[in-house]
Amino acid sequence: MPSIDVCFSPELIHLFDLRGKAVVAVDILRASSTMVTAFAHGAATIIPVTQLEECLGLAKQGCLTAAERDGIKAEGFDFGNSPFSYMIPEVKGSTIAITTTNGTRAIRLSEAAEEIVIGSFLNLETVVNHLVELQLDVLVVCAGWKGMFNLEDSLYAGAVAEQLLERGFSSGSDATLGALHLYQNAKADLFQYLQASSHVQRMQRLEITKDIHFCLQHNLYDVLPVWQNDKLVNLKAVPVA
Amino acid sequence: MPSIDVCFSPELIHLFDLRGKAVVAVDILRASSTMVTAFAHGAATIIPVTQLEECLGLAKQGCLTAAERDGIKAEGFDFGNSPFSYMIPEVKGSTIAITTTNGTRAIRLSEAAEEIVIGSFLNLETVVNHLVELQLDVLVVCAGWKGMFNLEDSLYAGAVAEQLLERGFSSGSDATLGALHLYQNAKADLFQYLQASSHVQRMQRLEITKDIHFCLQHNLYDVLPVWQNDKLVNLKAVPVA
Repeated sequence: MPSIDVCFSPELIHLFDLRGKAVVAVDILRASSTMVTAFAHGAATIIPVTQLEECLGLAKQGCLTAAERDGIKAEGFDFGNSPFSYMIPEVKGSTIAITTTNGTRAIRLSEAAEEIVIGSFLNLETVVNHLVELQLDVLVVCAGWKGMFNLEDSLYAGAVAEQLLERGFSSGSDATLGALHLYQNAKADLFQYLQASSHVQRMQRLEITKDIHFCLQHNLYDVLPVWQNDKLVNLKAVPVA
Repeated sequence: MPSIDVCFSPELIHLFDLRGKAVVAVDILRASSTMVTAFAHGAATIIPVTQLEECLGLAKQGCLTAAERDGIKAEGFDFGNSPFSYMIPEVKGSTIAITTTNGTRAIRLSEAAEEIVIGSFLNLETVVNHLVELQLDVLVVCAGWKGMFNLEDSLYAGAVAEQLLERGFSSGSDATLGALHLYQNAKADLFQYLQASSHVQRMQRLEITKDIHFCLQHNLYDVLPVWQNDKLVNLKAVPVA
């Protein structure tokens, strides 16, 4: 039976053999939640990049651009990192170049994997169903905060673990058990639980509490972003008529 | 007010600025628990080393030697890593050279800190009282398992966090909160909680359940091992009459 394991930070990813595995890359607040939201609103392709300059270069090729640095929208870009900003008609059919502090890094460091899926609470069930179909060993890679362990990504890893363990996967390590127990402890009210977390406190100073509430909702979208040819595409996209 | 932070793996230690901090190095199963036990039985000095050869070299200089690799006693050494083996008269007044898989590494990587203390459940209260006296920012460095997050060291970090938060320290990060919540969830029966952990399962195959029970006892010894001039000494040693 396949296993479910958790990598709490991109700084630990060299300890894992990614070959033949399905990686779920997650940055709950907010990169992976916004990507999922953008696909839910019709985005055709998302290109994650590391540098602001690379992102602006793609604007000249007709991409919409999104950039956030330390929690706020970077100057000269179409979007920041709020999922609400993607709920506009222009998103439909678009290609969006997005750079984020932590999320892009987690994806790039996972490229040795068999498949990379973008996970968030918003598309939890869709991702879990896909992983069950694949029957590959799974590694949830938490983007963390500047390399550090963070609670929101770890809780998401615990949510994936809870569902996969119920569906026949085995626990890969202590990290899986730690994430699972944190999630089970917190799931009755994730928002309340996260009040004390450092990133949520940073975000509340930026007055984006609304974003946090949004990103913690489970199963809002049937969206499955996967990494293909240096881009993210939505395997659940509805074909254009 | 000083803060309490947690580093879940030596692989993450480069993310922390150790200068001016008190580090608590911990490898519950079993390096730090055995060191504390050795001091409780009168060891004068412990020299942690990385290589088996270095350890054997110190034997020629009159040291007792201890070495464990992957959970069992290495050949040609006086001790393995069971705390019970140190409960003999020869330990009193001795210098012990000890090499372990993960524990030595955590100490060596922490050398930029103002002070390094060896923590275990066995001397929890003594360590916490010392940290409260120091009033420095605290970082608990978990030895982990081959660089990976492990539950038993994280639970200990949570135990330290619980006590320091009650005594006026602030939470340094999400890692502190994660460790704290795992400990609060588990503390009613740590042994039962750890049944599912990977390291405990490895150790049970090696029939050292007795060691695990021993290492999870709280406040058995009033011992305070600190790092001084490349050696560990016990600040609570009773002067020889």
